[in-house]
Amino acid sequence: MRSLGLICTACGKEYSDGHFRCECGEPLEVVIEKKKTVKIGFHRSGILNSFSDLLPGLEDKNSLSLGEGFTPLTRLGDTDSSGMELYAKNESVNPTWSFKDRGSYLAVLDAIRRGYNHIGTVSTGNMAASVAAYGKRAGLETTILVSDSIPDEKVSPISIYGCRIIKVAGDYGQLYYNSLEAAKNSGLYFANSDVPMRVEGSKTIAFEVFLQLGERVPDFVVVPTSSGGNLRGIEKGFRELRESGLSASIPRLIVAQAKGCCPIDLAFSSRASEITRIHHPKTIAHAIENPYPPSGNAVLRILKQNDGMTVAIDEANILKAQRSLANNGLFVQPASAVAYAALSKLRSEMDLRKAIVVAVLTGSGLKYPAILKEHSSYVESTALASLEEVLKKRPTLH
Amino acid sequence: MRSLGLICTACGKEYSDGHFRCECGEPLEVVIEKKKTVKIGFHRSGILNSFSDLLPGLEDKNSLSLGEGFTPLTRLGDTDSSGMELYAKNESVNPTWSFKDRGSYLAVLDAIRRGYNHIGTVSTGNMAASVAAYGKRAGLETTILVSDSIPDEKVSPISIYGCRIIKVAGDYGQLYYNSLEAAKNSGLYFANSDVPMRVEGSKTIAFEVFLQLGERVPDFVVVPTSSGGNLRGIEKGFRELRESGLSASIPRLIVAQAKGCCPIDLAFSSRASEITRIHHPKTIAHAIENPYPPSGNAVLRILKQNDGMTVAIDEANILKAQRSLANNGLFVQPASAVAYAALSKLRSEMDLRKAIVVAVLTGSGLKYPAILKEHSSYVESTALASLEEVLKKRPTLH
Repeated sequence: MRSLGLICTACGKEYSDGHFRCECGEPLEVVIEKKKTVKIGFHRSGILNSFSDLLPGLEDKNSLSLGEGFTPLTRLGDTDSSGMELYAKNESVNPTWSFKDRGSYLAVLDAIRRGYNHIGTVSTGNMAASVAAYGKRAGLETTILVSDSIPDEKVSPISIYGCRIIKVAGDYGQLYYNSLEAAKNSGLYFANSDVPMRVEGSKTIAFEVFLQLGERVPDFVVVPTSSGGNLRGIEKGFRELRESGLSASIPRLIVAQAKGCCPIDLAFSSRASEITRIHHPKTIAHAIENPYPPSGNAVLRILKQNDGMTVAIDEANILKAQRSLANNGLFVQPASAVAYAALSKLRSEMDLRKAIVVAVLTGSGLKYPAILKEHSSYVESTALASLEEVLKKRPTLH
Repeated sequence: MRSLGLICTACGKEYSDGHFRCECGEPLEVVIEKKKTVKIGFHRSGILNSFSDLLPGLEDKNSLSLGEGFTPLTRLGDTDSSGMELYAKNESVNPTWSFKDRGSYLAVLDAIRRGYNHIGTVSTGNMAASVAAYGKRAGLETTILVSDSIPDEKVSPISIYGCRIIKVAGDYGQLYYNSLEAAKNSGLYFANSDVPMRVEGSKTIAFEVFLQLGERVPDFVVVPTSSGGNLRGIEKGFRELRESGLSASIPRLIVAQAKGCCPIDLAFSSRASEITRIHHPKTIAHAIENPYPPSGNAVLRILKQNDGMTVAIDEANILKAQRSLANNGLFVQPASAVAYAALSKLRSEMDLRKAIVVAVLTGSGLKYPAILKEHSSYVESTALASLEEVLKKRPTLH
């Protein structure tokens, strides 16, 4: 087994395999070995072979891939006439319909490489379903820890994959840290939200965007931000593209959060170097409702270096953005709509003429059907015999 | 505008653009112009450029593609040790999470080519959402006709895209024919289940499978069959690959239906040349619950020429297959599970050693969350303080 190098994103302390966070409390990231020449390019067999020069040395001997990644970069046409190029990176087109599959796939391969036969995560949504799918497919024992307040309709789309689900009573935020601790003594690999392999998985979003734009780097990438793991991965991906000589710049990163739970936006706006826990988070964008993101401080460090920004969106504008995206053919979950809503704010604050902007749409709208009640429908009725007549009328839709 | 040739699948009568069905009542298909050399290969810009030599001459000038197609061909590992290669063509990884997007995309381009500004379909499920998404994205007026008995939870995932929805009281089966008739007088392009452009869209499933298998033709392709349009497209795709000299054979096609609504299976088993309407269809596989499929007779003709077969699956085995697929990481809707269940029956009836078998999984399990109630969950509870202890126990899961 080839060992991986890890480094702390804050203090720079180095670690070998088998660690998830630094003693200083901050997250670790994988050190990618420098190669003389780096090549990337879409390879039918999956993200591992497409981007092997910039990923840790993992192997998929048992064809565990479900075809994660290679998601569409969809041009959004409803932009202004300034020449701005606006794209959606549609991560809902993944095997469990969210971006989490990229990291889950690598985490499962990493767990196998390191001899684990038990994998788990702490999540009630996208990540839970994703780890359950990849864990079971790999034949690993698979355990998902959820909050004991989880509603039944969120349990069943996880349990369908055949995993063990444990409802944990107590501080759900603390569960992230306790699970990593418990894992040390129970031989369980916890693929939590911002562990190094998830960050490696999210890097592939950057690689794909770069290739899909014809080897161009966008000017801005807007990322709905919860734990911070996905943003860290996307930044690391663009950073490594530049370090390898494949590109000359890194996009400015925009953290998009919901006003009802925006610890990173609050800290960044007040120029704090550390996030503060939100005490009563409340937003329809459940997938990014993280009151104390474990990579929050790491994201603040990135934003500072990167000339990045944060945007917080209220509930009405989240719904409006969800509707606008659907009118473009993209039905995404509210957390993803936050990224699109953030664009309006960006446009009002800076000149985006000729800018290339990518909004990362993290998951499918089907994940959260209850939200559909918030949107109006236009439904008429007719008898079959009157169909032709009714079709000739053209109602004005909302 | 270049005109398309169409030909009746039954009597061979030829038509020009603007027809959907033959005077004899049977469906038409597009005649693809013969080219001296035919090339296909994955092209980043989409199915249109990847397979242009074998598709009608359509153009996407306004970037209306949502990245449909290019879905994973996933190896299924739970096969016997006979050397059979079993794959799932996972159509749930599409922009609206079903195979319908391939045909909707081509139908929208065809509607635009022919000067329509209004598109519609008759559907309460996958096809409705797909046409709504592509129609609205194209800026076309978009009308979805649904049965007046449609439950609210099925309306909202369609209406989110911003289309007009009309509930039609009366014979829902008849609505297919009435809508095509009404369309003639109302300037509306009806992209119904088996219209020529949908069949062209489904051809791309065949092309992709062929390329994904390293330019090999599978021995069997199992298709969940409702209207018959998808099976017709897959067969036409493999047929045109052979005619173009790219391949030497056509797979045997297996029609998979639910026992509660299997008009094609009943007709084929009794050696009838025409299907008979089912009077009280009842199955959890709603997406293929079509009591009188408009391409049913066309499918019977294909099965005869092709040495094909039909299989009908009962409800318990549909659920069992849905669970098995989820244990392989693939959560599909019940209609798709029917294809997987059909394999068990195939295996008991014939020697599949060294056979290459592809099951087409047509849509996402998230499309029909109510089904999750039929599956048991394994949920434990613990306090945060006892987490470590609980994780060390290894329960036996169902």
